[in-house]
Amino acid sequence: MSIVVVGTVAFDKIETPFDKTDKILGGAATYISLAASQLGGEVNLVSVVGGDFPEEYMSLFGKYNINIDGLQVKPEGKSFFWSGRYHSDMNSRDTLITDLNVLADFDPILPESYKNPEFLVLGNLTPSVQMRVLDQLTHRPKLIVMDTMNFWMDTAWDDLLEVIKRVDVLTVNDGEARQLTGEYSLVKAAQKILTMGPKFLVIKKGEHGALLFHEKSVFYAPALPLEEVFDPTGAGDTFAGGFIGHLARTKDISFDNLKNAIIYGSAMASFTVEQFGTEGLQGLSHEAIDERVKLFVDLVQFDISLVNS
Amino acid sequence: MSIVVVGTVAFDKIETPFDKTDKILGGAATYISLAASQLGGEVNLVSVVGGDFPEEYMSLFGKYNINIDGLQVKPEGKSFFWSGRYHSDMNSRDTLITDLNVLADFDPILPESYKNPEFLVLGNLTPSVQMRVLDQLTHRPKLIVMDTMNFWMDTAWDDLLEVIKRVDVLTVNDGEARQLTGEYSLVKAAQKILTMGPKFLVIKKGEHGALLFHEKSVFYAPALPLEEVFDPTGAGDTFAGGFIGHLARTKDISFDNLKNAIIYGSAMASFTVEQFGTEGLQGLSHEAIDERVKLFVDLVQFDISLVNS
Repeated sequence: MSIVVVGTVAFDKIETPFDKTDKILGGAATYISLAASQLGGEVNLVSVVGGDFPEEYMSLFGKYNINIDGLQVKPEGKSFFWSGRYHSDMNSRDTLITDLNVLADFDPILPESYKNPEFLVLGNLTPSVQMRVLDQLTHRPKLIVMDTMNFWMDTAWDDLLEVIKRVDVLTVNDGEARQLTGEYSLVKAAQKILTMGPKFLVIKKGEHGALLFHEKSVFYAPALPLEEVFDPTGAGDTFAGGFIGHLARTKDISFDNLKNAIIYGSAMASFTVEQFGTEGLQGLSHEAIDERVKLFVDLVQFDISLVNS
Repeated sequence: MSIVVVGTVAFDKIETPFDKTDKILGGAATYISLAASQLGGEVNLVSVVGGDFPEEYMSLFGKYNINIDGLQVKPEGKSFFWSGRYHSDMNSRDTLITDLNVLADFDPILPESYKNPEFLVLGNLTPSVQMRVLDQLTHRPKLIVMDTMNFWMDTAWDDLLEVIKRVDVLTVNDGEARQLTGEYSLVKAAQKILTMGPKFLVIKKGEHGALLFHEKSVFYAPALPLEEVFDPTGAGDTFAGGFIGHLARTKDISFDNLKNAIIYGSAMASFTVEQFGTEGLQGLSHEAIDERVKLFVDLVQFDISLVNS
């Protein structure tokens, strides 16, 4: 089933307590697309890069059958560049450099073949840019997933609420859910967000897993406890890609199958954090993905007898 | 099945962003005993209080069939008193007052009838006091559970390691697991701790749930997302009490049943945090407990199809 992914394609420069990189391939749409395509989704990418974006990365997208007709190249411009340094806990980081470059005036233009996707993922971007994508669709997708961040809550509140109104699944972290609603309790925050438009809410809690809210129900998927977290960059975006990739493959958007999509998202993210950048996310066999999913089954499965039984 | 619980019985004075208490009943052994007894354990308490400890609290233990033959009363002394204030996130707190009082020279003396328990819980206490308990046993219990904290890692390292060597289950929080081993990765920390004596390790992560490690396996139980966390005091001790209470009731110390015990511990803790002190933990019917356990089943259960299936 076809997926349109809109988001950043970037250069990242990353420092962790263990090692550091030169400029490597990054960006939300990169991680989302790589994860979704390896679960069998037909991914169509919408983004923008500069003339400095290497052929090698272009062909990487081709290798994963990611359609880049919607990837604008601005020969005179430079690609979006982000640099960050992780603290020793690997859960928090400082942004060292954010050079928007060609992203600063990104106008996402959907090729004709992209205008009727079955699934749409709006990666974290300026809300007005996300809105521009929605306005070009000729039909409403089966499911629209939107990611955002606290920055837009501080700087583009009204636009943000307008986009949120039009999507099916919102993904935020716990702090962002609190900021968006003024509620400290995640249960109360979720109840409020589910009145703002989305039918589903995913709250990402990093190493503590993710929560999926729908109507009065909640599902909790832990993150896999790993021996090494090498580089968390892209974990949240990989999660979103695994999530949509599973839904596209199974063609089922019931709450029960969204639970499974959360597990696939978590499994794919566990590959990403094991290596720098997209390295851990490349070249995954279906067998390797299934093995990882089975670890999640073992991690949470129990067979309980009640006191009164 | 008989359980001996050794730990503090105390007065607590608690402030949260929402409300505050006068001196109320607290102490690790109080929470452990109330939780374990309501799951059907025959609880035998070992602790010390002063002459200020009210008859009303004594009869509360009686009401829950908690044997207090091992509860020493020092008429001239005052009971252990702790006061703390929670921050607005409800996950961190400042200790305002710690008056050890009669706890300062607590010498736990096991009545004859306590010396051969099936289960033993060593609540968080000076390691040498925990050791004194082990030294009075006439037979080794089926399972010994030990709680401790970072303070003893700073002040009584050698004693602490000696006690850890002799127990079956160690319960610590994530920061303590890291401090005890010098490993940031919880998986690596767990592997080290499992070479130090315990066959099982429980890492408590508060609102993020708990991990159970055994040999090469790991089980993750989330905490129940609650609308209101009113007062987290005693949640970890309630968890330990629910854990041992379930094991005592089911008489099964397999890894699979320890998973269930983690769920019962988490369920009991969810009652504690909903009200001040022990209020939420009192008067629970088996039906109410079962309902809570079912919420955990719903929270984590999924039925997944693999990519290759």
